[in-house]
Amino acid sequence: MGALEGAHLAAVACACDDDEEQSDCIPLLAGDAATAADAMEPAVRALLLGLGEDDRREGLRRTPKRVSKAFRDGTRGYRQKVKDIVRGALFPEVGVDKRTGSAGGTGGQVVVRDIELFSYCESCLLPFSIQCHVGYVPSGGRVVGLSKLSRVSDVFAKRLQNPQRLANEVCGALHASIQPAGVAVALQCWHIPLPENLECKTLQGWIRTSRSCRSGLFEGESSTLWSDFLALVKLRGIDMEAGTGDRCVSVPWCPLRSREVPLSNGLCKKSSTNGMVSAVASMLLSLGEDPLRKELLGTPQRYVQWLMKFRARNLLDVKLNGFTLGNASLHERPGGGTADHGHGSIRTELHLPFCAQCEHHLLPFYGVVHIGYLDKGSGEGIIDRSHFQALVRFYGCKLQVQERMTRQIAEAVHSVSRNGAMVVVEASHMCMISRGVEKIRSNTATVAVLGHFLTDPSAKARFLQNVLRTAGSAV
Amino acid sequence: MGALEGAHLAAVACACDDDEEQSDCIPLLAGDAATAADAMEPAVRALLLGLGEDDRREGLRRTPKRVSKAFRDGTRGYRQKVKDIVRGALFPEVGVDKRTGSAGGTGGQVVVRDIELFSYCESCLLPFSIQCHVGYVPSGGRVVGLSKLSRVSDVFAKRLQNPQRLANEVCGALHASIQPAGVAVALQCWHIPLPENLECKTLQGWIRTSRSCRSGLFEGESSTLWSDFLALVKLRGIDMEAGTGDRCVSVPWCPLRSREVPLSNGLCKKSSTNGMVSAVASMLLSLGEDPLRKELLGTPQRYVQWLMKFRARNLLDVKLNGFTLGNASLHERPGGGTADHGHGSIRTELHLPFCAQCEHHLLPFYGVVHIGYLDKGSGEGIIDRSHFQALVRFYGCKLQVQERMTRQIAEAVHSVSRNGAMVVVEASHMCMISRGVEKIRSNTATVAVLGHFLTDPSAKARFLQNVLRTAGSAV
Repeated sequence: MGALEGAHLAAVACACDDDEEQSDCIPLLAGDAATAADAMEPAVRALLLGLGEDDRREGLRRTPKRVSKAFRDGTRGYRQKVKDIVRGALFPEVGVDKRTGSAGGTGGQVVVRDIELFSYCESCLLPFSIQCHVGYVPSGGRVVGLSKLSRVSDVFAKRLQNPQRLANEVCGALHASIQPAGVAVALQCWHIPLPENLECKTLQGWIRTSRSCRSGLFEGESSTLWSDFLALVKLRGIDMEAGTGDRCVSVPWCPLRSREVPLSNGLCKKSSTNGMVSAVASMLLSLGEDPLRKELLGTPQRYVQWLMKFRARNLLDVKLNGFTLGNASLHERPGGGTADHGHGSIRTELHLPFCAQCEHHLLPFYGVVHIGYLDKGSGEGIIDRSHFQALVRFYGCKLQVQERMTRQIAEAVHSVSRNGAMVVVEASHMCMISRGVEKIRSNTATVAVLGHFLTDPSAKARFLQNVLRTAGSAV
Repeated sequence: MGALEGAHLAAVACACDDDEEQSDCIPLLAGDAATAADAMEPAVRALLLGLGEDDRREGLRRTPKRVSKAFRDGTRGYRQKVKDIVRGALFPEVGVDKRTGSAGGTGGQVVVRDIELFSYCESCLLPFSIQCHVGYVPSGGRVVGLSKLSRVSDVFAKRLQNPQRLANEVCGALHASIQPAGVAVALQCWHIPLPENLECKTLQGWIRTSRSCRSGLFEGESSTLWSDFLALVKLRGIDMEAGTGDRCVSVPWCPLRSREVPLSNGLCKKSSTNGMVSAVASMLLSLGEDPLRKELLGTPQRYVQWLMKFRARNLLDVKLNGFTLGNASLHERPGGGTADHGHGSIRTELHLPFCAQCEHHLLPFYGVVHIGYLDKGSGEGIIDRSHFQALVRFYGCKLQVQERMTRQIAEAVHSVSRNGAMVVVEASHMCMISRGVEKIRSNTATVAVLGHFLTDPSAKARFLQNVLRTAGSAV
């Protein structure tokens, strides 16, 4: 495969209409964006089939189209040009005499802090989150429009990246296009962990790294401009030097890379995953990327490895995983949420973490499940937390929609408790965050109410109060 | 003026290409978006002239183009159709038997919380910030893609609005397009105060209001679905019922409306502001809005009233305002930041609030100024804080760019202190927040370093440490 595609790529002429801009612009295999997205759809379909899904069922029917569109949009930086962005946004601005000091259009540092961005990890194709801080020192009596620092950063974020290369490319592009006395870029990046390592609280368990790059006057150990830059970033509560929680630079930050397993492991049907790996490689090609460039070697395998964690499971899997609520060990438990109520006591298991894969966009959604049910009176019928965790894992760890997952968990609990079940799922959806709408802080809650909880509003209210009381610092 | 334009508007046929959609779509006066934006440019030019500015100077030359583009983009909701957004995003989803409970595609509540939006205040044309929470109860075994709740809300946010009408329109549009069992919308909105009421900390001094709207099963005092919705929103730390800091519903929330002054007051040259008011009215017309609709009466006057707070001032104004640093009262002061240093002591005045108007986009930027200078030794040459505040107001309260303002303040301080001056300005730019790039949390720092601060890095570092130490909870 590799040789053929490499030749294919080499044979394609650069589609750029401006020769100066070649370095900012990776050629497209198909000139027309819509065609390129269409070309991705069969690849996404192959992934769905490899996951054991029926690509004709309603929820998945348009998934190839949606995934292609989102992936194209999320990598639009390949088709953007830095000079187009900066052009016309350089403003003459009087500075001060250099002997007197530095300010205005000469030497007075300008720093835009807390630019929120998203990028795709080049090692595994999952989105990662970035807090970006960009500074520059104006030169030649001209300053650049502030929004351009954000726009130029986004051009490079909207490509397959790793944090250090992103910092380098943003720094280099700003230096070349603004021609200032120096550029400073500091990034804090967060990568979603393996599903099994997700914790309840936002970004807990996430892999964090801080990276930076500097040019011109910011360079050199004695640069006081660099320490000023770090101080200005610190004014926003961000200590780039502390590096708490950062991975050692020598350890790859992508969790799928750092625990690399032989690529055949963990993939159940080798022949089907071979097809999936080829499909992902063809998606990279249709972005204009070279699947053979060093950093992308193994990326299709890693993405397939991630996806296969969410493959369709059948009843056999359930049994092998030792989970059936019907046989759940029922026993008296001290502690645990409880409240006396007509039909027995309300029992709660709250903040059970999960990570699912959105079937509409093939992107993770993750959060917590809160479960309430009624025991059979006098403490009979209490279910162990580990069984709930297994239940959440079973219904969560697959291609899902949050509404369905909520109902399925509630029905499973209700089938054992009989008296009633109530489930609240709270989740952040990467498809809401990293795609077009980019509603970074949005969070979705879904509710299912069965049996006694339906007819008794006070039971429902009590359960929600319980959730609220334990929600911690968010309240 | 009014009658002519009213007739003009009435004569325009609806440009919608889909008859069903007329309610979502206000007709455009010009069919082509670019033409409509072009039509706005002379109006913006008239505003610049009315402000006493030279519209040919470099920083303002392309301001009419930029303002028109930003205003068109910020009001794109007039040209969007809800049905286009929801179409194709309704997914069949099995629910539970209604007697058993409510979940999945039938009756299980779905709430997307913390959707961050921006809108334009219809009373004064300034942007306002919105935290939006949208819930609905699925019906007929189908759910809507989560991002559509955000996208539909944004259609109505991207129009001239007030908070209650925004809530009503989002609720009505979602009910009509999804046809669910009910819709709940809760908004928290923040409006920038008059420049003189801005305080240091983010959103302190801002005018806040909470509004909501509900339909179907959420209606009625006994609706437990509504109280569940409020509980789910409260899980994100937002208490819609507390309404702390909300304005009484009868008081208009727009600060330019609530302190309404006779429209001739505060506008120095009546003839020139008449022209400005007409210019703003023509901008409303080119959006397809009716400047005679009740809520827009007085809007052009209020926007001009806001702009005139930032009109170009000359030296006479400075003298009338009682401010010249040259004559600043110099006296010994106890307290106040100080640190011994070779050329006298470092004196600091930190966190001086300001509000300026970005000359590139005619939108506010606001924040704090930190000033450091060296006294003349033995406490001589200490300047009173009130003089710094007047200085900041003089250089801040006009059409500005942050880099220039920083330099101007530093030069003014240096001209008195002689030994050295250092200024850091930290600001949030509405042009970075409410326009295209929408980097909501971004914040820009600019630095000017003059005299002794340039040659002695330890003085510079000490000043920044001082700022950092007093930055409060942000650190």
